[in-house]
Amino acid sequence: MTLDNATRERILAEVDAGFDAQLAFTQELVRHPSLRTEESSAQDLMFAAMQDRGLEMDRWELDVDDIASHEGAGIIDVSYDDVDNVVGTYHPALEAGRSLILNGHIDVVPTGPESEWATSPWDSRIDGDWLTGRGSGDMKAGLVANLFAFDAIRRAGLSPAGRIHFQSVVEEECTGNGSLAALQRGYTAEAVVIPEPEEDMLVRANVGVIWFRLRVSGKPTHPREMSSGFNAIDAAHHVVGRLRELEDRWNAQKDSHRYFEDLEHPINFNLGKIAGGDWASSVPAWCEVDLRVALYPGVTAEDAWTEIIDHLATVVDDEHGHPITARTTRNGFFAEGYVLDEGSDAENVLRGTHREVFGDELRTFTTPGYLDGRVFTQYAGIPALVYGPISEAIHGYDERVSIESVRRITKSIALFIAEWCGITEARAESDPGRSHSS
Amino acid sequence: MTLDNATRERILAEVDAGFDAQLAFTQELVRHPSLRTEESSAQDLMFAAMQDRGLEMDRWELDVDDIASHEGAGIIDVSYDDVDNVVGTYHPALEAGRSLILNGHIDVVPTGPESEWATSPWDSRIDGDWLTGRGSGDMKAGLVANLFAFDAIRRAGLSPAGRIHFQSVVEEECTGNGSLAALQRGYTAEAVVIPEPEEDMLVRANVGVIWFRLRVSGKPTHPREMSSGFNAIDAAHHVVGRLRELEDRWNAQKDSHRYFEDLEHPINFNLGKIAGGDWASSVPAWCEVDLRVALYPGVTAEDAWTEIIDHLATVVDDEHGHPITARTTRNGFFAEGYVLDEGSDAENVLRGTHREVFGDELRTFTTPGYLDGRVFTQYAGIPALVYGPISEAIHGYDERVSIESVRRITKSIALFIAEWCGITEARAESDPGRSHSS
Repeated sequence: MTLDNATRERILAEVDAGFDAQLAFTQELVRHPSLRTEESSAQDLMFAAMQDRGLEMDRWELDVDDIASHEGAGIIDVSYDDVDNVVGTYHPALEAGRSLILNGHIDVVPTGPESEWATSPWDSRIDGDWLTGRGSGDMKAGLVANLFAFDAIRRAGLSPAGRIHFQSVVEEECTGNGSLAALQRGYTAEAVVIPEPEEDMLVRANVGVIWFRLRVSGKPTHPREMSSGFNAIDAAHHVVGRLRELEDRWNAQKDSHRYFEDLEHPINFNLGKIAGGDWASSVPAWCEVDLRVALYPGVTAEDAWTEIIDHLATVVDDEHGHPITARTTRNGFFAEGYVLDEGSDAENVLRGTHREVFGDELRTFTTPGYLDGRVFTQYAGIPALVYGPISEAIHGYDERVSIESVRRITKSIALFIAEWCGITEARAESDPGRSHSS
Repeated sequence: MTLDNATRERILAEVDAGFDAQLAFTQELVRHPSLRTEESSAQDLMFAAMQDRGLEMDRWELDVDDIASHEGAGIIDVSYDDVDNVVGTYHPALEAGRSLILNGHIDVVPTGPESEWATSPWDSRIDGDWLTGRGSGDMKAGLVANLFAFDAIRRAGLSPAGRIHFQSVVEEECTGNGSLAALQRGYTAEAVVIPEPEEDMLVRANVGVIWFRLRVSGKPTHPREMSSGFNAIDAAHHVVGRLRELEDRWNAQKDSHRYFEDLEHPINFNLGKIAGGDWASSVPAWCEVDLRVALYPGVTAEDAWTEIIDHLATVVDDEHGHPITARTTRNGFFAEGYVLDEGSDAENVLRGTHREVFGDELRTFTTPGYLDGRVFTQYAGIPALVYGPISEAIHGYDERVSIESVRRITKSIALFIAEWCGITEARAESDPGRSHSS
């Protein structure tokens, strides 16, 4: 640590001092149901919060053509009207330190049947150590922590000496196109921190993800002549079963993928959604399933996709010999995984701040889930520190995030900003929104 | 046959003379997409057609409470606003002959993806011997045949001597509540003809049907921790598989059910519809499947339902030992099957008219599908003659009905009316709409 004890303590004390306000703002943000394509009001809130802090503001609607031209783009099958990224930039008076991106996503996944929740997914509550609500852990607590970590430094009378881009991006849960669009817009830095809910750990490696829809078709009939028909729901189950042969094969290869050797089941093919048929008394002739498959870092999405298509081509009939027609359509992620190289300066700084706050060594791990970290590492060579709080049920019912974990992560990020960017004593006249070199 | 040759020939000639108009009217009726709860405009057409023929008209909205009080009612989970039955009654000047109900249903099943049809399901075409469109066979051709058979008798200068109720009912494809409501309203007669698409044959026996929804629930998670979650789509498949054990057991009992011994697979459990999950990257925690199960005549719906519930109660976990929660909700048919007793006068008359028109013996058969015939046989002791034309794909794509078969069925019904009700030479002053005894 290069910060002296007193400075460090000033910053940590300011995180505590601002923490009630941080939780209140997190709850307010959770109350905006920023489901895919419905992020606008939540982005309004993020925009205002950044603007209030004097940041240089940028908000833009994602451009379908620009994004689609990028090799890492996910398939876009929704309208991007009013689907905006928000970036607020802090410029130090004199840019002497290292630059930083503090990234987080504003989009959240659907809630499932709200009746299954103890209380409304959009009515964030605080219950002991837990702050609840859809998106609380994944990842509004982290997105807000980025801003309040910065606040603590400022309130401590300090100014970061490096440029900082605060990014509130869309589309992390389906395509990764939000972070990709921010990169395309020119935002870059020497490190990026993404406080996803990672159980107080740092992500060393993660999987890539491909989304696609499988449509199985057959011949509809009246159930009175059921045997002459073909039940597409059963057939879809059969095709998914055959696809799981590929899942098994990929999992069996884990030993040849560094950082994945010790995971029990690193590659998950998730059957996430199904819809088929329209009448109890008609034998259904079509069924659609939405699948999410994972791939190891180092395997390109193109290569994985080719394997999937080749494997599906071997599925020509069901277990009774009925011919099957299965059509695939990619409809989201088409993303490779990434590995955070060991020994980077950014990681070393984070190790120090984590030890300082948690009193423990930073642990790294491999996660079998998609992360926007890949956008920064793969396409800009920026070390991505995906590191965030303890959570529960992030894609389930009664999602929640640990409040004390958020407090410590915020402290660790605040110290990271100070260590990474460097700090100067703020001059009375400095105003971060106006003092940047133009 | 008690009709003399000349009279018979006059009637048959008039069916031919009116047949182009009959086909045109059938096509017009098919063009009204009378899906469940959307039957209103098609019923307008039927009402006007009956009114034009001078029938005494009755049109009423189904009453949920009245119907629900009947033991044979199907569960109502839609609104019956504007869901009407239409009945037109012919009263002879002097009611000397036997009374008759000519019944048919106006509702049709969904089309599935319209893109799978050669042309729009609602754009009825004539293509060689086939008249196409959703509902063409099931059963607008038959519904219209009832009216045009009557027309032929009238145009031949004859008047049926028995009372006739022309019924255009709703809800045959989901609950049977339309015919039930007509019975509750007081319509009864000494025989009923229902020209469902039965391949020029008479139904001797058929199954009862129960509809229900199975909702399987579990614990949703992020796919990164997929093994800790529970995929409700897979679990639903497992539950349906276990339910098929009961289907096998019931099919194995076919030898003890008269008229079902020779069917290969009389009892079909149809998995007609499925919906589950809401996001490719969330492990789905709920899945709903709509099932249609069949039961033998003589088995009450209550008894069959008890067996289903008892069997499902044995499904407590999946093949990996994960606990399963499966909730059932009945949502349509709760109907017993029926057998048409051999040797009835009505059947004997139909045997004669069929032989006359087809030059062949009337064949009877057992159908593993639901029929409204059960309403008349079970709850009013009326012999139900379910007898109608050759069709294809009645719950599938490109549904169609054989035109020459419709012509012959219409002729057979016309002769049946004349034989069953008796005929008199029409007097110039008679007007069927006004001549009834009041």
